Amino acid sequence: MPETNLAATTASPFSMSLEDAMRTQRAIRRLKPDPVDDALVLHLIELALKAPTGSNAQNWDFIVVRDRAVKERLGRLNRGMFRIYGAIGRRATRHDPRMQRILDAVEWQAEHFAEIPVLVVACLRGFRPWFPPVAATSYYGSIYPSVQNLLLAARAAGLGAALITMPLWSTFLARRALGLPWSVTPCAVVPLGWPRGRYGPTTRRPVGEVVHLDRYGNQPFRGR
Amino acid sequence: MPETNLAATTASPFSMSLEDAMRTQRAIRRLKPDPVDDALVLHLIELALKAPTGSNAQNWDFIVVRDRAVKERLGRLNRGMFRIYGAIGRRATRHDPRMQRILDAVEWQAEHFAEIPVLVVACLRGFRPWFPPVAATSYYGSIYPSVQNLLLAARAAGLGAALITMPLWSTFLARRALGLPWSVTPCAVVPLGWPRGRYGPTTRRPVGEVVHLDRYGNQPFRGR
Repeated sequence: MPETNLAATTASPFSMSLEDAMRTQRAIRRLKPDPVDDALVLHLIELALKAPTGSNAQNWDFIVVRDRAVKERLGRLNRGMFRIYGAIGRRATRHDPRMQRILDAVEWQAEHFAEIPVLVVACLRGFRPWFPPVAATSYYGSIYPSVQNLLLAARAAGLGAALITMPLWSTFLARRALGLPWSVTPCAVVPLGWPRGRYGPTTRRPVGEVVHLDRYGNQPFRGR
Repeated sequence: MPETNLAATTASPFSMSLEDAMRTQRAIRRLKPDPVDDALVLHLIELALKAPTGSNAQNWDFIVVRDRAVKERLGRLNRGMFRIYGAIGRRATRHDPRMQRILDAVEWQAEHFAEIPVLVVACLRGFRPWFPPVAATSYYGSIYPSVQNLLLAARAAGLGAALITMPLWSTFLARRALGLPWSVTPCAVVPLGWPRGRYGPTTRRPVGEVVHLDRYGNQPFRGR
């Protein structure tokens, strides 16, 4: 979708087909500093709210960060984590040019974090239970479907977006940066902006490799 | 989408717009026992695989359950959990007719679990780290975006679907039912089938109520 159509996009529903949006969604980390309208961001979040939550609790909050001071605080947290993760990642994937390119983009984003026009921080109200294990999956199952809606809607709008968690490595410091009460847990950050890169088809492992029928290891669809 | 078009749907990409799919997605738990083609299920999972994973690891497995014996084992786990959760839920929401209707549907599904044509169990390879807290969110952030793609694609295909975790309350027993190795963690179950109910618009809290600008509690979009 060319950027010249954006005014229309903001006002009207996204007409891109579901399948096209999914097939061309990818993390876009290199973003222009150009502004992104509130109306468009709210439209994306409104679609995010259409995702399911456990017991339909809708126990979420979305912090839209535009204030440079807050972006800088989250950016420092992100860079702190990237110094460790990036160094390990560079070394572990030094013979994999594709992963090195991903890390280049992650590094670019870490260096330009405060210039990203909008950060959306998806949060859950209520504490995450530590036990039983199913409680953790139910908990995050109430926020990531909405994050995926946000990412797909951003793609349909032609906005660059990615799903990151590095700025949240310390929930204590992330809560402080965002003024979050203890009872609200930041789960994921989606930086939004007009892309320097392009959307396009992604490559994935073949479906027959990851699908098992009835029991793990029974893979009759291999080769599809 | 009328069911008469299903053969075409299975063969061709889903043309429903992203926004329409999101706005009309809802949990559909009452399902017909009529068969659902492998090709359609694989198409849905192929779109699920387009979702992002942390470090692009694509460390997922999807178990497609059609065998009645396996469905019965998962159904027993689901019912065991529903006996507790349902009783608590019924009592806690006894003055909320909407939640009572949701619980009716959850109970219907629990009673007809083995008749559901297909269960898709989304799993992650690798263990979930217990520390730091950000590790848990990153972990589930690698599976729920794909689960949401699966749910949206099911909606576009006219298939009923829902996101449930109750059959997984004991990861030990769920692993045994599915023959999963210790290193593969079942995260979510999506029962699929032709709906007895209907898709349609959902109601959600207004976007201005869940959006905060820059800092928690700053809600300039209330009323939108």
